[in-house]
Amino acid sequence: MTRDTSREAARRDRLRATAAAAGLDAVLVTDLLNVRYLTGFTGSNGALLLRVDGSTGGDVFGTDGRYTTQAGTQVPDVELLVDRATMPALARAARTGGATRLGFESHVVTVDELHGLERLLGEDGATVELVSVRRAVEALRAIKDDGEVEALRRACAVADAALAELAAEGALRPGRTELQVGRELDARMLALGAEAPSFETIVATGANSAIPHHRPDSTELRAGDFLKLDFGATVDGYHSDMTRTLVLGHAADWQREVYELVAASQAAGRAALAVGAEVTAVDAAARDVIVAAGHGEHFTHGLGHGVGLEIHEAPGIGAAGAGTLAAGMAVTVEPGVYLPGHGGVRIEDTLIVTDDEPELLTLTSKELLVL
Amino acid sequence: MTRDTSREAARRDRLRATAAAAGLDAVLVTDLLNVRYLTGFTGSNGALLLRVDGSTGGDVFGTDGRYTTQAGTQVPDVELLVDRATMPALARAARTGGATRLGFESHVVTVDELHGLERLLGEDGATVELVSVRRAVEALRAIKDDGEVEALRRACAVADAALAELAAEGALRPGRTELQVGRELDARMLALGAEAPSFETIVATGANSAIPHHRPDSTELRAGDFLKLDFGATVDGYHSDMTRTLVLGHAADWQREVYELVAASQAAGRAALAVGAEVTAVDAAARDVIVAAGHGEHFTHGLGHGVGLEIHEAPGIGAAGAGTLAAGMAVTVEPGVYLPGHGGVRIEDTLIVTDDEPELLTLTSKELLVL
Repeated sequence: MTRDTSREAARRDRLRATAAAAGLDAVLVTDLLNVRYLTGFTGSNGALLLRVDGSTGGDVFGTDGRYTTQAGTQVPDVELLVDRATMPALARAARTGGATRLGFESHVVTVDELHGLERLLGEDGATVELVSVRRAVEALRAIKDDGEVEALRRACAVADAALAELAAEGALRPGRTELQVGRELDARMLALGAEAPSFETIVATGANSAIPHHRPDSTELRAGDFLKLDFGATVDGYHSDMTRTLVLGHAADWQREVYELVAASQAAGRAALAVGAEVTAVDAAARDVIVAAGHGEHFTHGLGHGVGLEIHEAPGIGAAGAGTLAAGMAVTVEPGVYLPGHGGVRIEDTLIVTDDEPELLTLTSKELLVL
Repeated sequence: MTRDTSREAARRDRLRATAAAAGLDAVLVTDLLNVRYLTGFTGSNGALLLRVDGSTGGDVFGTDGRYTTQAGTQVPDVELLVDRATMPALARAARTGGATRLGFESHVVTVDELHGLERLLGEDGATVELVSVRRAVEALRAIKDDGEVEALRRACAVADAALAELAAEGALRPGRTELQVGRELDARMLALGAEAPSFETIVATGANSAIPHHRPDSTELRAGDFLKLDFGATVDGYHSDMTRTLVLGHAADWQREVYELVAASQAAGRAALAVGAEVTAVDAAARDVIVAAGHGEHFTHGLGHGVGLEIHEAPGIGAAGAGTLAAGMAVTVEPGVYLPGHGGVRIEDTLIVTDDEPELLTLTSKELLVL
């Protein structure tokens, strides 16, 4: 039995339309995640030759002999070419098919690889022009289809469940170390069906919580301290991303104040997620809340980023960003206030932009949890 | 307290000599493992500007703000430049220092990155020529220094100990699945101090053992079957690589025959590891034994490869290889005979080439182990 490949076929057709508009005969896709997106192939070596006009032949998927069987199962609807030198073999196929303008991914192809392609495409007096398609596939990937949203939903649900289990079992208690908590969170996500954590799980307590990307160490959790957890699960290749900040024992007034401020900022950021909104305006909506409270200098990073096959992908949501949101984008909203030497709070959700309200995928409560 | 950085300094001086011979003023090293090799930096973003002549300034290590503290600890002996756009910032430093011929790694730098560098180096009428240094750092990395050999020794010891523990505990018994065995081997290596497995551990039993790179699945171990384990541990960034093939219960005559053949081939390959030996001759020494027994077609891959900061690195040891062995090279010797549908044997060690006998790092017995 072969799998349903209609989503990948539709994605290839969208790229075909982009390529046709750029006057290309074919596109050589070599970024492995882009190849996965367009074919469903999950191995470690694969490339796709996408042809704009069927008259020069159909699309060709290339990989090496290790993946012949896997390619047959995962990419049953695209012609298979098995060759250890995958990229040159596909370029040769493009030339043989009569391509004269071949698109390539200039942000992925190395200088040496380009020279190899140029030599090969100029052999025997052939003239095939190589044209950069820039991040054309990444631009398509920014808008998630139903299958992708479903994978993200499951990835977020795994992270939600892992944290709920840890809290219910009392694993987040004074005396335990950041490293212990991080390892248990990771193990729990794997047990719940994650392929892997989305990134190196951040567990930061006490003064460490003021470090935006603290790496868990042997610091012990203590009563009265913040505990910041930034983590996610990968399911079917799609990444979830969530941050929650808790307090152990009893929350002091300053902790409640910082927490409520970040929560208000985060709510404002979520409310600004609308089709057509400039990413700079979304960042500003959340940032203005923190600036107005006099903490602008303590919010030291952008508001959020796209998530999908990569943990960070388009669109970036920050003061230096560009562009607008569209329906189907999957993004994080994650403001933070960090008081060096003291403690910090970040609250982060993963959401889908829709024509209506954004859909919240990370469902863990954002009330200040005092454990 | 800062660490001893004399080994990294010596490596930079070796690259400086190579660059001077090529008529370069400076080299921009951007491959992250090469940067680690030359500086000791283990973060996820870093680059090195190496200057040939001290008169244009010293070396500069570049990274972004996340790693300021880490860079201070790990790379205390090189000037630090903190800039999110690390590569352009270092190129600008080279230009400011008066470089006119700047080396770069054309097998790593993308087409877009090269165009960015060209624009930047041509600003205001400056003329800095960009020259590929090819794999100059990888060539240095092929010869391990004492610190690297020590890390490899520890990585191999972890793998040896993990397998010994599993066998002693009876974890390799009929009824268990390949996946279970693989996960326990991985967990054991981590518990013994590995940072990670060196690669996705291969556990292949029965007919699966005839697939050179079988991925562990739910196949159960059965009495009378081969059990092939190909795995390694990463310690301080250095990878070990070992394969052992066992038999569960009772070994049949055909299994003993295949095993003894591969063992004889592997011994011949190890015996051929000598300073100055052509890599093709080393491959042939092992392969001839298998060919003479009529199984040439069942040994479908090269004999071995270098190991170090990467699991596969220079030198490649195969029929299509080129070059000779040198003292200090760390290589694998791993012949195999695979009988499709039936079963297969591979025996693999990691060794150091020396002026005398090669030093064997993977110490697990190569007698046919019947469990």
